[in-house]
Amino acid sequence: MRIGAIEAGGTKFVCGVGNEEGIIEDRVSFPTEQPEQTTKNVIAYFQDKGVEAIGVGSFGPIDLDPTSPLYGYVTTTPKPGWANYPLLSTLKEAFDVPFGWDTDVNAAAFGEATWGAAKGLDSCVYYTIGTGVGVGVYTEGKMVHGLVHPEGGHVLTRRHPEDDFAGVCPYHGDCLEGMAAGPALEKRWKVKGSELTVDHPAWTIEAFYIGQAVASAILMLSPKKIILGGGVMHQEQLFPMIRAEVKKNLNGYVSAKAILEDIDSYIVSPGLGDNAGLCGALALGLAAAQGK
Amino acid sequence: MRIGAIEAGGTKFVCGVGNEEGIIEDRVSFPTEQPEQTTKNVIAYFQDKGVEAIGVGSFGPIDLDPTSPLYGYVTTTPKPGWANYPLLSTLKEAFDVPFGWDTDVNAAAFGEATWGAAKGLDSCVYYTIGTGVGVGVYTEGKMVHGLVHPEGGHVLTRRHPEDDFAGVCPYHGDCLEGMAAGPALEKRWKVKGSELTVDHPAWTIEAFYIGQAVASAILMLSPKKIILGGGVMHQEQLFPMIRAEVKKNLNGYVSAKAILEDIDSYIVSPGLGDNAGLCGALALGLAAAQGK
Repeated sequence: MRIGAIEAGGTKFVCGVGNEEGIIEDRVSFPTEQPEQTTKNVIAYFQDKGVEAIGVGSFGPIDLDPTSPLYGYVTTTPKPGWANYPLLSTLKEAFDVPFGWDTDVNAAAFGEATWGAAKGLDSCVYYTIGTGVGVGVYTEGKMVHGLVHPEGGHVLTRRHPEDDFAGVCPYHGDCLEGMAAGPALEKRWKVKGSELTVDHPAWTIEAFYIGQAVASAILMLSPKKIILGGGVMHQEQLFPMIRAEVKKNLNGYVSAKAILEDIDSYIVSPGLGDNAGLCGALALGLAAAQGK
Repeated sequence: MRIGAIEAGGTKFVCGVGNEEGIIEDRVSFPTEQPEQTTKNVIAYFQDKGVEAIGVGSFGPIDLDPTSPLYGYVTTTPKPGWANYPLLSTLKEAFDVPFGWDTDVNAAAFGEATWGAAKGLDSCVYYTIGTGVGVGVYTEGKMVHGLVHPEGGHVLTRRHPEDDFAGVCPYHGDCLEGMAAGPALEKRWKVKGSELTVDHPAWTIEAFYIGQAVASAILMLSPKKIILGGGVMHQEQLFPMIRAEVKKNLNGYVSAKAILEDIDSYIVSPGLGDNAGLCGALALGLAAAQGK
């Protein structure tokens, strides 16, 4: 089976062709320009690929409600040209195949549950911590949409006692994204996160915020796996620090062996590595091909 | 159809018989004693009722994993006699009918989605704020179980700037339950919450904590309805205050008409009133009868 996958990001689009084992056989990447030009590039790429279905994991916010007149649109994004753009229907006009459609982070969570770190599990929460913080939620074998879709990057966290940074979120100031995404690191420490040493106090504060959000996600959703991806999580020293924060915050309350005894296997990096996004779109396409 | 319903609480058990319209035709209530005596009372009640299925919404923590050897048990509760008690199998031995089994709060959320304030919706989050804080989570038409089950009453919240109360949660001190459940109100203000005047500053602080938790739940799960029940929420003045806190915390970020324009219909009291728990168990029983 040949399935198309589109990781539609605000900075770049990655398109690929893969199979039902989650293997990407071909891929291409181009910068996100105006929507007309960008979709033209996407369509040109898939023109001769003979795919049986296409999955799209998109930056957002997007409309996921099949009964809505704006279903398949990118909606209120500040990204120039993209607000209220009918991304899905533009692609559907070009290719008469089944389409899967979800947020980039839900797609990544689904991809991880299909082939990655949460393989075989019916729930996981996927965080991407990079230029922003995105959260994909997969519970009881379904991607969570609800009213719009989860925006868990903006949950409110308690302030670290030694941190007086105001935060960079234009909506909330010091929400999780405002305190812990890449731009917050850079503004707080005056250098890019990737230039900070592994023992810099920045990481203690970073783990404090992420660990707190993850603990609340565990309490709220009881997921079977927590997956932390994105550029900031390339700082591997963060993992043990975040796990320690989670344990401190839960304080033994959630009586699950996975957390109490095996947290190293519970809070993990993406099994699909930096392919999580594209493989997620592939998983959406595969599900669409199978009529799910 | 005659369906049995058991609201298994830590303080009292409520048993009833109802039909597929959610109408409770008969009910009885007795204090929760040692498990053997309590289940004996339950079995005696249903002996001659001729029910076709029974739903149980239970206090917890409980085991919801059908593949677990402890499925159907009340697990690590501090309640004397009840830790590791096989509640479900004890009832199943007495009645050869299909059983539904979930947490009391998930059951209430499901009952509200079946006949109450979230009728016809495929998601809602149900809070009960009383002697503790419990949270039931219903997403994409399913009750969320995951690793154990949600324990959203214990999420961490920011401290109100004028509140120096330490909190009463034995695990977390100042988590949501530690700061906002009935015992926290009583310990902070030295009188029962029900004796405080409606314009007492206690309610400003109460709404601050609940509104914060609800805002984070909206960001994490994007539910189609938020339902606030339990003894503390009999203080109806809290509703507009909580809605205002939620709007303040979200600050327009979640672009959903239900929140931006119609929050009075979005954050509501249980449509089933104080029957939410028993009707929830009834809904579980009905689903079991229908083989769901």
